[in-house]
Amino acid sequence: MLIVMKTDASEAEIAEVVRIVNEMNLQAEALPGAQRTAIAVTGNTSPVDASRFENLAGVAETIRVTRPLKLTTLEMRPTKTVVRVGDATIGGDELAIIAGPCAIESHAQAFAIAETVRRSGARFFRGGAFKPRTSPYAFQGLGEQGLKILAEVRGAYGLKIVTEAIDEQAVDLVEKYGDVIQIGARNMQNFSLLKRAGRASLPVLLKRGMAATLDEWLLAAEYIMAEGNAQIILCERGIRTFAQHTRNTLDLAVIPALRRLSHLPVIVDPSHGTGKNYMVAPLARAAAATGADGLMIEVHDQPERALSDGAQALTLQQYEQTIAEARDIYEVLTATAQVG
Amino acid sequence: MLIVMKTDASEAEIAEVVRIVNEMNLQAEALPGAQRTAIAVTGNTSPVDASRFENLAGVAETIRVTRPLKLTTLEMRPTKTVVRVGDATIGGDELAIIAGPCAIESHAQAFAIAETVRRSGARFFRGGAFKPRTSPYAFQGLGEQGLKILAEVRGAYGLKIVTEAIDEQAVDLVEKYGDVIQIGARNMQNFSLLKRAGRASLPVLLKRGMAATLDEWLLAAEYIMAEGNAQIILCERGIRTFAQHTRNTLDLAVIPALRRLSHLPVIVDPSHGTGKNYMVAPLARAAAATGADGLMIEVHDQPERALSDGAQALTLQQYEQTIAEARDIYEVLTATAQVG
Amino acid sequence: MLIVMKTDASEAEIAEVVRIVNEMNLQAEALPGAQRTAIAVTGNTSPVDASRFENLAGVAETIRVTRPLKLTTLEMRPTKTVVRVGDATIGGDELAIIAGPCAIESHAQAFAIAETVRRSGARFFRGGAFKPRTSPYAFQGLGEQGLKILAEVRGAYGLKIVTEAIDEQAVDLVEKYGDVIQIGARNMQNFSLLKRAGRASLPVLLKRGMAATLDEWLLAAEYIMAEGNAQIILCERGIRTFAQHTRNTLDLAVIPALRRLSHLPVIVDPSHGTGKNYMVAPLARAAAATGADGLMIEVHDQPERALSDGAQALTLQQYEQTIAEARDIYEVLTATAQVG
Amino acid sequence: MLIVMKTDASEAEIAEVVRIVNEMNLQAEALPGAQRTAIAVTGNTSPVDASRFENLAGVAETIRVTRPLKLTTLEMRPTKTVVRVGDATIGGDELAIIAGPCAIESHAQAFAIAETVRRSGARFFRGGAFKPRTSPYAFQGLGEQGLKILAEVRGAYGLKIVTEAIDEQAVDLVEKYGDVIQIGARNMQNFSLLKRAGRASLPVLLKRGMAATLDEWLLAAEYIMAEGNAQIILCERGIRTFAQHTRNTLDLAVIPALRRLSHLPVIVDPSHGTGKNYMVAPLARAAAATGADGLMIEVHDQPERALSDGAQALTLQQYEQTIAEARDIYEVLTATAQVG
Repeated sequence: MLIVMKTDASEAEIAEVVRIVNEMNLQAEALPGAQRTAIAVTGNTSPVDASRFENLAGVAETIRVTRPLKLTTLEMRPTKTVVRVGDATIGGDELAIIAGPCAIESHAQAFAIAETVRRSGARFFRGGAFKPRTSPYAFQGLGEQGLKILAEVRGAYGLKIVTEAIDEQAVDLVEKYGDVIQIGARNMQNFSLLKRAGRASLPVLLKRGMAATLDEWLLAAEYIMAEGNAQIILCERGIRTFAQHTRNTLDLAVIPALRRLSHLPVIVDPSHGTGKNYMVAPLARAAAATGADGLMIEVHDQPERALSDGAQALTLQQYEQTIAEARDIYEVLTATAQVG
Repeated sequence: MLIVMKTDASEAEIAEVVRIVNEMNLQAEALPGAQRTAIAVTGNTSPVDASRFENLAGVAETIRVTRPLKLTTLEMRPTKTVVRVGDATIGGDELAIIAGPCAIESHAQAFAIAETVRRSGARFFRGGAFKPRTSPYAFQGLGEQGLKILAEVRGAYGLKIVTEAIDEQAVDLVEKYGDVIQIGARNMQNFSLLKRAGRASLPVLLKRGMAATLDEWLLAAEYIMAEGNAQIILCERGIRTFAQHTRNTLDLAVIPALRRLSHLPVIVDPSHGTGKNYMVAPLARAAAATGADGLMIEVHDQPERALSDGAQALTLQQYEQTIAEARDIYEVLTATAQVG
Repeated sequence: MLIVMKTDASEAEIAEVVRIVNEMNLQAEALPGAQRTAIAVTGNTSPVDASRFENLAGVAETIRVTRPLKLTTLEMRPTKTVVRVGDATIGGDELAIIAGPCAIESHAQAFAIAETVRRSGARFFRGGAFKPRTSPYAFQGLGEQGLKILAEVRGAYGLKIVTEAIDEQAVDLVEKYGDVIQIGARNMQNFSLLKRAGRASLPVLLKRGMAATLDEWLLAAEYIMAEGNAQIILCERGIRTFAQHTRNTLDLAVIPALRRLSHLPVIVDPSHGTGKNYMVAPLARAAAATGADGLMIEVHDQPERALSDGAQALTLQQYEQTIAEARDIYEVLTATAQVG
Repeated sequence: MLIVMKTDASEAEIAEVVRIVNEMNLQAEALPGAQRTAIAVTGNTSPVDASRFENLAGVAETIRVTRPLKLTTLEMRPTKTVVRVGDATIGGDELAIIAGPCAIESHAQAFAIAETVRRSGARFFRGGAFKPRTSPYAFQGLGEQGLKILAEVRGAYGLKIVTEAIDEQAVDLVEKYGDVIQIGARNMQNFSLLKRAGRASLPVLLKRGMAATLDEWLLAAEYIMAEGNAQIILCERGIRTFAQHTRNTLDLAVIPALRRLSHLPVIVDPSHGTGKNYMVAPLARAAAATGADGLMIEVHDQPERALSDGAQALTLQQYEQTIAEARDIYEVLTATAQVG
């Protein structure tokens, strides 16, 4: 931490700050500048709580230097994490595709969509059994019955199942029926759920909260890793901004930012990230071009009859074309060694 | 809902939209305008899913008319809700004060602060036993031991206890030891927790999520009310914006907006809403001036040694002065019948 | 500036950073920490350009310490600025009131409103002759004719005229007819206009841009002060956020933030800050409670017929009540020496 | 416009709204619904001012239906605009590349960079002579001398010159020396400047303001078109959000949104859009993948010595590789007819 003193801070005020730093068993070094003195605090192995200093006499501001991240960083694990789900991977050499409906509505619907997903070469099937809906009056999902349908999809098509757990009990059920536990944007800082996921036997797909900074997102992943589960996939799904032409604002710059900082793989969800059918294909291509490890895409056999988020679902045909385009772009990157 | 057609939409496209509306057992009325036709959809008692229309040929956009809110609205309950906690109230004739430390750290700390809180005339004591911390490496609270200390504070000072539940198990414990269940900003859309709170025997203080719109916040309250618990206090605690001079941006305009729409009482937390000690008093005064039903304020006997959020806690002396000022301002409003 | 090295930065990389700092005639001090080395750069009198370091080998990040502000700071001028307009002041002992219509529409309209403004005891009359409208098809103001009407208002009622200049030519005209040059939010970073205002003979009211940080706003004021004009009033008018219940989000925390940093007076515009008639009174009270030096309020004799922004204008009666309430609150503050 | 009445609005209140609509020479049609009545207003050819209705008794809210856009829409001009600059185009069949330094610093610097830009096959050279800097103490550009250097670059390399005009006088100079007038993000709502650009003899590159909605951006273009200049290129350069890992948040979803609405070409500036050297290449690829008509990229022969924005400039070598990758991706799109 750096403690910046006011230009008119007295010697006594500087000495008092140094004294308190030392009282915390840390080192303080006063750095006299042209205009003011700054005091560098060193010797700490985790972030120093700035609050002890911010209201002291003579202190202008405190500046955090040590980031609170540990396990998720490249400094701790210099090798990129490859998440393995049976024989499929995320973070490896190919663009991972996770596709399916927003919510599982029926056996017929799930199978009609899974047929196309399988044919496209995707390895993962998504579909919600527990839906975190903004309104209590909206369709909340089929619950365990939905999970059973998902398990049947796996049996029939060999697709790995990615599905959301909205509370600790749901984690138990996803462990029973699924392959990857999804934690949704609204639960990104549901710390009890994160801890439970950290003790789970399956990989965790952690969506970014709609107002989460990069550090907050990685700290949520730290909650999972700190419990022992290092099989984590990050998923960018758009943030909340003033813009109204799109449901969320997809923040693709977070991908190179994560690459520089963390070993965890990161995928992009252009369906929730835009909320509009006609934006999904261009943003899916953009995500592939940025170097994402995979895509999570909503597809429905009858989008106009979907029980949730129909406006953003691709038709089966749109889906197949979108995947083809994204893969062509991903190949441009692998050809020039930008990914993989 | 209003379905706005493109200027060059054909008669056939308009007819197809009308046909689908009718298929949904709703009425459609085409409104030819100077430039384009709009189709008004009526007969619905809840919001119509726009997604069935947005991707149809000839449709330019859909505009939602019916808001999804029900139980929380003045249209449903025209009389303001007064939350009663024993002989204390929130939403009644006086400015409710909820004060205490961010986290309960020890018996001595809690009692030292409660002494001042009681003397100030506040009726509610706050203090976290379960702390939802951004980092897994930060102090997470004393757990049940903290709740026991809170119960002793109630016994000793007659203060009502407001404390956060971060998961369903914690709700059980708060019901055992506390008086009001707080649901934090990060859990505003933890729907399993909201449903559990809706079945609880205590009032619920529901903080606004840091990126929550007004409708999303009230829909979270609808989750609680739909389960049978109508004793809800809303709490504005700042939203996330680009501004960096403050930890969050306190959105006081939400108070008149809520007054126009909802019967639920609303209080303001200027401590989390600013994150800075020196901003708490001016924003507490502002909240009182806006017509809030109460204030939630962090106070600590030794802010520079607080285990969490010390930078924003008031000293005991600052707290007493802040409350006095806020009450003086509240009296100006009651004198002119702006509140109460 | 602080240059934070990666944990695995080599001695040679650290030495290279130090070498470049020295090449810039600055001092570098390497601070070895428990995990990594940080290099403190001192000796600079203005911010050091971080870009020379950010892409060097071994550098993790750079942290700015020196703020770019000079003339607007309390460190440079420890005494609060009182802006004087004839015998009226802003930043002095009383709550300054600037009131009037959004746009000057006619002689009759201006006089009908000015009559009430004068009676309320306000010293300043506002009204736009040049309107910066989002759409080219909206009413753009009466131009010089509007300024002439404003000059007649001054003659008749003794009110000081505050009116917007949207370009350098308009500054010439406002200097001829008005008393205070308003620079609007959309022009906060129109640097040619700022420089011209810095050479003007009148005080400048500088509105905050809708996405401006505190530093950017003060730097805009620095442009004016650097040209020689230190008579500047800052005006908070709401920022752009995701919230949709209000046109802008009024950021009242900026007032204590400015107080801590700058000697310039700051007022609040709750009319543009909310965009809704029914929010103006509560937010005007809140601004007074926060300790603002004044209020800028839109009032119209026939709001439903206003040529611009009618939805936010107060009626004459609402205006008089709002001012009375705000003054009562301001008195609470003066009684406890929070302002003045 | 749709005027939504409260559920308890009386017949008389509805009648009064209808009466006022008719007084405005528009048609009103009351649409009784299951819960409330909505009144559709038709017959208008431009947006109706909602403010006359919002504060009337019985009115719950007003909903805008008519968008204020005219000349920039596909409904008005169904054919995509191709901007022609001599024999070069933007909006045509190939990915337009505009590259060069942030600011022109010297003849040697400009020529060193132009050499590489020319070799890369780009047709446009960028470089600022007038720099709109946040701080008055930062380098403000070489002024007319910089424009002369740019004119020499054109003579030597045949590159078209894109350069910013920060005020009306600067437009005169850019018309004399340059080929495309750039209007920067901070001036997007400098309406006097927009009107002057609308009367200019050169195409205009209009950057999006950092807090501009889609409609506001297009309305700024309407200001230019309304004066007679239809040669406009839109440029997305990132918006301001809470995210701090990037200087701005690049909003690529705006590209499909614009495609659906407007005939104007749109390019992307990943340099200002991210502010970080290491993010430029991935986001440039993403922009190409989204279907943008071109890229605007900062490149410098010695980024670590650049007088402005050095942290985001690419080295000559990075630039050449970035352009090659973006073109490879653009070819994937042209192969599948996504662009051109």
